[in-house]
Amino acid sequence: MTDRPEDPPAADDPPAADGLGALADRLARFAAARRWQPFHTPKNLAAALSVEAGELLEIFQWLTPEQAAAVMDDPESAHRVRDEVADVLAYLVQFCTVLGVDPLAALADKIDRNELRFPVPEPPADS
Amino acid sequence: MTDRPEDPPAADDPPAADGLGALADRLARFAAARRWQPFHTPKNLAAALSVEAGELLEIFQWLTPEQAAAVMDDPESAHRVRDEVADVLAYLVQFCTVLGVDPLAALADKIDRNELRFPVPEPPADS
Amino acid sequence: MTDRPEDPPAADDPPAADGLGALADRLARFAAARRWQPFHTPKNLAAALSVEAGELLEIFQWLTPEQAAAVMDDPESAHRVRDEVADVLAYLVQFCTVLGVDPLAALADKIDRNELRFPVPEPPADS
Amino acid sequence: MTDRPEDPPAADDPPAADGLGALADRLARFAAARRWQPFHTPKNLAAALSVEAGELLEIFQWLTPEQAAAVMDDPESAHRVRDEVADVLAYLVQFCTVLGVDPLAALADKIDRNELRFPVPEPPADS
Repeated sequence: MTDRPEDPPAADDPPAADGLGALADRLARFAAARRWQPFHTPKNLAAALSVEAGELLEIFQWLTPEQAAAVMDDPESAHRVRDEVADVLAYLVQFCTVLGVDPLAALADKIDRNELRFPVPEPPADS
Repeated sequence: MTDRPEDPPAADDPPAADGLGALADRLARFAAARRWQPFHTPKNLAAALSVEAGELLEIFQWLTPEQAAAVMDDPESAHRVRDEVADVLAYLVQFCTVLGVDPLAALADKIDRNELRFPVPEPPADS
Repeated sequence: MTDRPEDPPAADDPPAADGLGALADRLARFAAARRWQPFHTPKNLAAALSVEAGELLEIFQWLTPEQAAAVMDDPESAHRVRDEVADVLAYLVQFCTVLGVDPLAALADKIDRNELRFPVPEPPADS
Repeated sequence: MTDRPEDPPAADDPPAADGLGALADRLARFAAARRWQPFHTPKNLAAALSVEAGELLEIFQWLTPEQAAAVMDDPESAHRVRDEVADVLAYLVQFCTVLGVDPLAALADKIDRNELRFPVPEPPADS
């Protein structure tokens, strides 16, 4: 488990107080202070992540494309979107912390693989 | 849209090549190069996020708590977990980019609110 | 589309007023009376089905196996379970109506296929 | 648990070999023959239901409304839709069997409640 995102930053690291690792650390301390860790099993957190992703989708389920694109123009629905984004990210980060997964490294690796899997089409020769 | 996470970093910022903002930028360039932006509507991305969260949950659906806790011990299932984490994070980040949401700020705000909503219980007086 | 489940029953059919076909018919008339059909596209209904399945899962996400098994003992949580079951079934049925899928025939076919795919293990010869 | 849908039909009932109750009975015997009941807890079945609903949504996630409406015209995608409908219905029915919920009664009750909650608008007086 060398890639635990919640490892405390070394003293000479840049602050990055709002980076994903720092938020993972805040979430871990938040759960520990409330003794919620027994509930935060990988399976429960994966279920909670899926539930929250459903709540984000719920905002959009009956909207037309135009309404969906304008969802941040209304303060109330913008708040709801940000709130569900936060919930999804919170459970994803906590899931990763519990299993020792580095989500940023996982995503960087996936993009690397996808760049090989989906090569950019060459433009036509005469263009 | 002052909080777009994909804004290019200023010249004197620390590199942070693996930070969430840099990955958001890579994902935006990846989709643009393949002309996938027309598909990346907020509603489609919210649906894709929900689908990928289901795929992560699928790994755990029949596992006992013991099996779930050991899921990273097997290289194949560990790879599958990292792959689905990457997919969830990729669609969450792309959703945020399209709507101009800063996911780290949304999560920091949510933790702030939850610290007020769920106060830490005081220890007994004689402890 | 020979398998539309909302076809009116023939005059000499058994009543089956509570069968799935009759409920599909009630749901179709309910939506038509409120002019909701433009929203009831296959994609929107699939999204709504997924959202409601998440709401059913939400009831169980933090429960222990014992608490989950006892969920119908509490009238309030029993009502919530029945309500979410109804929502999932309602969107599944409406999805099927819109696309002309017979859900009962689809399930019967799937069980047929699964009986071939997962043969019952033979008992040991000496037992 | 007076409403268990898997109760065997009485001798003078109409056959209804393809009704939802008969399919619930087939599914219960299928799982029992393979000794899968220990895995079929309410929580696991609710998770599996959500996963399968995600797989149904996956078919539609990048489709335009026109493509989504034509999904049954292609035999391969039509088969995939029927297959995912069957999986969703199978887990919903098994969930209901395990908890003693009658899904048809739950849906009928919900439609009753929704008819009160969403009254049909009166047509204009001069129409």
